[in-house]
Amino acid sequence: MDRFSFEIVSTDGAARSGVVRMRRGAVLTPAFMPVGTAATVKAMLPESVAQTGADIVLANTYHLMLRPGAERIAALGGLHKFMNWPWPILTDSGGYQVMSLAGLRKLSEEGVQFRSHIDGSEHFLSPERAMEIQAHLGSDIQMVLDECAPYPSSESEIEKSLALSMRWAKRSKAAFRGEGACFGIVQGGVYPHLRKRSVHELLGIGFDGYAVGGLAVGEGQSAMFETLDCTVPELSRERPRYLMGVGKPDDIVGAVLRGIDMFDCVLPTRSGRNGQAFTWDGPLNLRNARHADDDAPLDTGCSCPACRCYSRAYLHHVVKAGEIIAAMLLTAHNLTFFQDLVRTLREAIGMGTSKEFAARFLERYGAVDADQGG
Amino acid sequence: MDRFSFEIVSTDGAARSGVVRMRRGAVLTPAFMPVGTAATVKAMLPESVAQTGADIVLANTYHLMLRPGAERIAALGGLHKFMNWPWPILTDSGGYQVMSLAGLRKLSEEGVQFRSHIDGSEHFLSPERAMEIQAHLGSDIQMVLDECAPYPSSESEIEKSLALSMRWAKRSKAAFRGEGACFGIVQGGVYPHLRKRSVHELLGIGFDGYAVGGLAVGEGQSAMFETLDCTVPELSRERPRYLMGVGKPDDIVGAVLRGIDMFDCVLPTRSGRNGQAFTWDGPLNLRNARHADDDAPLDTGCSCPACRCYSRAYLHHVVKAGEIIAAMLLTAHNLTFFQDLVRTLREAIGMGTSKEFAARFLERYGAVDADQGG
Repeated sequence: MDRFSFEIVSTDGAARSGVVRMRRGAVLTPAFMPVGTAATVKAMLPESVAQTGADIVLANTYHLMLRPGAERIAALGGLHKFMNWPWPILTDSGGYQVMSLAGLRKLSEEGVQFRSHIDGSEHFLSPERAMEIQAHLGSDIQMVLDECAPYPSSESEIEKSLALSMRWAKRSKAAFRGEGACFGIVQGGVYPHLRKRSVHELLGIGFDGYAVGGLAVGEGQSAMFETLDCTVPELSRERPRYLMGVGKPDDIVGAVLRGIDMFDCVLPTRSGRNGQAFTWDGPLNLRNARHADDDAPLDTGCSCPACRCYSRAYLHHVVKAGEIIAAMLLTAHNLTFFQDLVRTLREAIGMGTSKEFAARFLERYGAVDADQGG
Repeated sequence: MDRFSFEIVSTDGAARSGVVRMRRGAVLTPAFMPVGTAATVKAMLPESVAQTGADIVLANTYHLMLRPGAERIAALGGLHKFMNWPWPILTDSGGYQVMSLAGLRKLSEEGVQFRSHIDGSEHFLSPERAMEIQAHLGSDIQMVLDECAPYPSSESEIEKSLALSMRWAKRSKAAFRGEGACFGIVQGGVYPHLRKRSVHELLGIGFDGYAVGGLAVGEGQSAMFETLDCTVPELSRERPRYLMGVGKPDDIVGAVLRGIDMFDCVLPTRSGRNGQAFTWDGPLNLRNARHADDDAPLDTGCSCPACRCYSRAYLHHVVKAGEIIAAMLLTAHNLTFFQDLVRTLREAIGMGTSKEFAARFLERYGAVDADQGG
């Protein structure tokens, strides 16, 4: 078996369903990757993550390089063994978290010097070091180091940042020694000609897959979709396309219709720890008093442990009481919902009904949400 | 089947092994009951609690009467359905937590008026109300309301408190309408003649089982064992004996040798959330840096998920990072350890080797504990 392959199984307009094959397993696309930041998908055991339908998780290079350290994880046999997840793992490059979490950053052509948000210790991340760390982890899909410009940024700021990211992409690819795959990251803000320039520079370098970065940073859904509309058609049809850090269920549906294959987001896990549950009728806040006497399950059609074994009244109670089981059950439910969503999208693409599904989904999902007063 | 029966299977000196049979299942004794305060054994799913070997859990009347409320749980089908635990549940009376958690208590012959530690609301608990609440919950073993005198208290204070507790025990029994069993609680502090008086008053009322209360409140292990030595022989041989709120593994071993059948304690669950693990070689603090590179499991002989699938290095990492999975894995391990301990005690009693087992256990358990500098 090849170290990495992507096969498109069905297409429906711009949408496609397929399968990514790697040493440690196959990933069906469109795919949603739960986020396992610090070598754990928060509040979940790995076998429970797999039971939601997930076939790949994401881990954060920034967090793991600081604690427990990439060389330590390598000495312990790699990240898969360390966190008891034998299936594929995608690692980010650390660049995004350096910008959003670390203190006292100093950016240069060479890389970025920063202080750990945990203990203030000094660290340096270059394209070469980001590749080395991800190889130490044993990553199945490594991401190039890029600079994530803040939103909003002027066209000239984005152009300058993009040029650096493209030079770093070239260095990342040259330094890549991993046993898995290496993805490039398209930048360019909300400027179509810069996005196109970025795509063509990355295609010139040549990657196993292409991510769209720098979105879901505050630009709003319509600007995000417009950027996808001008970016995705430029990308290689033969390679998987990954929209980083996205997103809300309606973001995912819209992006799949535009030809995106892979997603990651902390939304289902973070919301689960905050008492929020995703349902086909929109999000619910379990903290709301109207659930206190409700014997019904969260979602009658859902197969997750929270829906099979507990009432909304129980979930309300444990959320209010701040019990850990609330985070465990709602995270399991939310991850199941996101996996059910991408599975349903795969099936709709296979049947050629993805647009109809999307319209019905958005009508129902965006409808009444009593908890939000909508 | 009877609503409640206790059969002694083996005896070995004062120690005995047996089985308590109830509508919802059998409990092998000596038994350790994990504490599920607010309708959840913290950081555990109920099926995982059962997998540790637990056949009964304890729930706290005080917490549940305040949130979500006993009548609400009754309307939702009872506590077993509410918390997805179909096996036996023992409920305490709420008296102990009123004394330790509630604000502005006012004790009278009738009962105790108090303010909720959650929202300051006023509540009243009498022997009759404590029985009613436990019946609403659907408890399999209800406990009488008693007054837990603080430690230390003078003999005259304990004598006065004991007299009230015995009048409340009589009223509790008279008010008992539950479908399960009702246990009395021996009080009397560390005063042998008061303990004996308490036992004989309770035997006169007649209960399905007898608890020893008011211990593990600061008197120390030797005073606790001395109190058991003068109390347990006075109790009915034919009824289960429950030592409330105990305890450390060595407390349990010593109490079993003295004829105790049942235990409950927050120690394995609370310690699990604080990074402490119980092992046959004594407790370990996973926060200690010496575990950071240790590829070995916590305990090679343990069948729990933490020991089967993770290294000490991983457990150290997730404890340090404050990840929820640390509480999940260490709680599962600690509950498994406590169940393994009582199972081993049952087997030793059956083989007539409980004293030898206890000596070997204490020698090994109390030996080196590098984390404590011992």
